Amino acid sequence: MISRKQSKFIKSLKIKKYRDIENAFLVEGKKNVLELIKSDFEIKSIVCTQLFSELNPFVLNKNFDVIVSSEQDLSQLGTFKVNNECLAVVKKKDYNIAHADLNDFTFVLDDISDPGNLGTIIRTMDWFGFKNLVCSEHTADFYNPKVINATMGSFSRVKVYYTDIIQFIKQSKKPVFGADMGGAELVQTRFPKSSIFVMGSESNGLSPKVRSLLTSTVSIRGFGKAESLNVGIATGIICHHLRNY
Amino acid sequence: MISRKQSKFIKSLKIKKYRDIENAFLVEGKKNVLELIKSDFEIKSIVCTQLFSELNPFVLNKNFDVIVSSEQDLSQLGTFKVNNECLAVVKKKDYNIAHADLNDFTFVLDDISDPGNLGTIIRTMDWFGFKNLVCSEHTADFYNPKVINATMGSFSRVKVYYTDIIQFIKQSKKPVFGADMGGAELVQTRFPKSSIFVMGSESNGLSPKVRSLLTSTVSIRGFGKAESLNVGIATGIICHHLRNY
Repeated sequence: MISRKQSKFIKSLKIKKYRDIENAFLVEGKKNVLELIKSDFEIKSIVCTQLFSELNPFVLNKNFDVIVSSEQDLSQLGTFKVNNECLAVVKKKDYNIAHADLNDFTFVLDDISDPGNLGTIIRTMDWFGFKNLVCSEHTADFYNPKVINATMGSFSRVKVYYTDIIQFIKQSKKPVFGADMGGAELVQTRFPKSSIFVMGSESNGLSPKVRSLLTSTVSIRGFGKAESLNVGIATGIICHHLRNY
Repeated sequence: MISRKQSKFIKSLKIKKYRDIENAFLVEGKKNVLELIKSDFEIKSIVCTQLFSELNPFVLNKNFDVIVSSEQDLSQLGTFKVNNECLAVVKKKDYNIAHADLNDFTFVLDDISDPGNLGTIIRTMDWFGFKNLVCSEHTADFYNPKVINATMGSFSRVKVYYTDIIQFIKQSKKPVFGADMGGAELVQTRFPKSSIFVMGSESNGLSPKVRSLLTSTVSIRGFGKAESLNVGIATGIICHHLRNY
């Protein structure tokens, strides 16, 4: 049984302020929790149904508390209707950009605000084997449950750094490409390995300060009348191009 | 001012049952409404703020009712917090697959359940100039406000047909490709113009019946440890490939 105090603590982690105070975040749903257990994240506790603990007995042997709860209680704790099997309270990682190994392409997000977009970008980068994502300080919070959920487990494999992206770009001394409408066509551009690729925000695209630092802008050619592509879709197309051409 | 009766009617259109009974749907937000006005959809009424009607005076000259409302009332009517400038009640179209012009590639969705995914797929197809989307009867409803919103106006340019996709594929006599993990690599495959491309559901992929009808399966090569790509991202990569290679 989960206590009132535990329940209150878990619910508080849906809010960034409390995630920061507690230095912890939530991982919800079977898929995400099973990926979490394989990772090097430090799990503080897992709340799960009796059935989940029977089907995954190894969780009981690990070095964290396991609280068995009813499906109903779990549904009320979590953010999502469907996540009624398990959730975990996990210690946040302190990813430090100074220690990042940036030999491969690095993606940079310039104020992506939608948690679903951020999560999908992380999942897509993981599919294509990109390890490093640098986010501006106004980008959605990596530890938001909606982000973690949309990564479908990939949150445990992509390193996400929050920093002043202007300083990061200036100090990197690498070629910097930005996705933008009027740029050179993606399919006709070759990118030096270890370049930086900046994706602009959903509503405003690349910020003027970022623009001023770019080596070149690159665009995905349109053939219809839509005004723009979703930023997750654009990132997916660029990832695919970088790995295949 | 909007009457109680009008308010009740508009709110009812968030539910599929009432959209079917009334043969109408909602279009919310400035971007979507302005795209709607340029389209050949039949608008029944527009609810908007005084400011919206002053900034877009042409709406008053059109052949539909314009109801001026407060921002607050508008926010309460609609589905989304941000859509507080305007919304429209629109007559549904009766897209009939028998009259479709399927000379270009046709995308088929095999039970895509997430409205955001469906909307993003429509927006992406529009960007790449693909006109026809055939959906299985269990795919999310095109007229769901979440779908319309995620299309960012592209709902007015892509024709979306709901039908028995098994019968459709059987009768089409065209090459049929399905996106699937173990298939031939996308970048090494050439697709005859006017092929059909089937995308499987988020949780189950392609259904066995669809699989049995495929000419070939095609996969987007992974380089990391993610188990799968989001279906919208996969569709975007395929659209980009079909238009550029």
